[in-house]
Amino acid sequence: MITSLQNEKIKEYTKLNNKKYRDLEGLFIASGDHLVKEASKAGLIKEIFLLEKEDNIYGEVTYVTKEILKKISGLETNPKVLAICYKKNKEEITGNVIMIDDLADPGNLGTIIRSAVAFNYQTIIISNNTVDPYNNKVVRASEGTIFNINLIITSLDEAIKDLKKSSYLILGTDVKAGKKLNQPNRKHALIIGSENQGIRKNLLELTDYNLKIKMNPKVESLNAGVAASILMHELNNGGDDNQNNN
Amino acid sequence: MITSLQNEKIKEYTKLNNKKYRDLEGLFIASGDHLVKEASKAGLIKEIFLLEKEDNIYGEVTYVTKEILKKISGLETNPKVLAICYKKNKEEITGNVIMIDDLADPGNLGTIIRSAVAFNYQTIIISNNTVDPYNNKVVRASEGTIFNINLIITSLDEAIKDLKKSSYLILGTDVKAGKKLNQPNRKHALIIGSENQGIRKNLLELTDYNLKIKMNPKVESLNAGVAASILMHELNNGGDDNQNNN
Repeated sequence: MITSLQNEKIKEYTKLNNKKYRDLEGLFIASGDHLVKEASKAGLIKEIFLLEKEDNIYGEVTYVTKEILKKISGLETNPKVLAICYKKNKEEITGNVIMIDDLADPGNLGTIIRSAVAFNYQTIIISNNTVDPYNNKVVRASEGTIFNINLIITSLDEAIKDLKKSSYLILGTDVKAGKKLNQPNRKHALIIGSENQGIRKNLLELTDYNLKIKMNPKVESLNAGVAASILMHELNNGGDDNQNNN
Repeated sequence: MITSLQNEKIKEYTKLNNKKYRDLEGLFIASGDHLVKEASKAGLIKEIFLLEKEDNIYGEVTYVTKEILKKISGLETNPKVLAICYKKNKEEITGNVIMIDDLADPGNLGTIIRSAVAFNYQTIIISNNTVDPYNNKVVRASEGTIFNINLIITSLDEAIKDLKKSSYLILGTDVKAGKKLNQPNRKHALIIGSENQGIRKNLLELTDYNLKIKMNPKVESLNAGVAASILMHELNNGGDDNQNNN
């Protein structure tokens, strides 16, 4: 049981709310019952902290006070449990790929990861200027699905060149000139642009197709997480009529 | 020009960050250039406050200090302009309808409004226990589309009965037992449930069809804004093959 906010370990782990320390240590924080269980299933747990007097359903834990959980988690709410997790090692690219070009909002990135796993994307490639996926808010918005996808942070320019060599179909989005495309006939990589700028021009020049979502011209754009999710859903379910009751 | 934070009008308008006062006054706040322009187009502006020394591209304005804008807006960022807006009068139900059953997150509600307008829904009916749509965060997440939809706050039970009398097809969602349905052949009302509970059971009993989104069973659910948007997109574009290049 640890009760002091001045405990060295507690002070060290609290620093994981800062990207610099997450990068340095290769660790990040997962707060709350659901995320801790998902981290555990993925075998990524270094250490679990549980609120004193709570039933331990997690295995090996260290009991701590409410104040310590609040301090480490960096949250306004009071989680009853949190885990210090290892970042996964960089993995090989497999399956369909979603690429994130300089997205800024952690909620949007977490939402996209959640939808990507739901629609069977196996790999997410994140540009160096995108919000850190190991940010607390991203991990929470992903609802723990971040533990179920290969996650690579790198230059998208380089990644696209590699994907082309592996015969991936490279898909972009273009709200004006884009087209509709269902069910590509080979593995694809879908690029999602930033909230304000969309996909950078130099990347758009590398795409095989640019997609658009048909909508009322009064609306300039959709939320980035929504747009990405609609496209992922269409690309992966668009041609499936098995359950069509229309 | 107003410079005092103690000015009576400023103090009154600052109270609009509180739902009680928004309800009492029938007013709400739209912050930032884009929202003020959208409010203006919709003819809903009561008064505009502009940062001192900024060019006035808005018509009749009152110049104020940075501190006053920050105080009224209730935002951490510093908007250069904001408008005090009239809530629209309750309007008749027209077109396709989206119904919101006790949604809690303002970002999710704003995102759903934005997608609803994008996918040509004309009316949104919001349950009494849903987050207030005139909340600052909802208005911002809607990107101003809240000015372009009929917005009715009422009991969904009653609303569904009225819609049935008008021959609307009532659609719910059910992640387990739901089916896929494209392009209904008559006007429809789609119910979206809360983040944690989904649609309340007594409402689900009133639906004609319950829809589902096909996805990886490892993922329990999608973000509520994403799920709503995918269904709205499918219901309104699902059968359109005009631009299909596959």
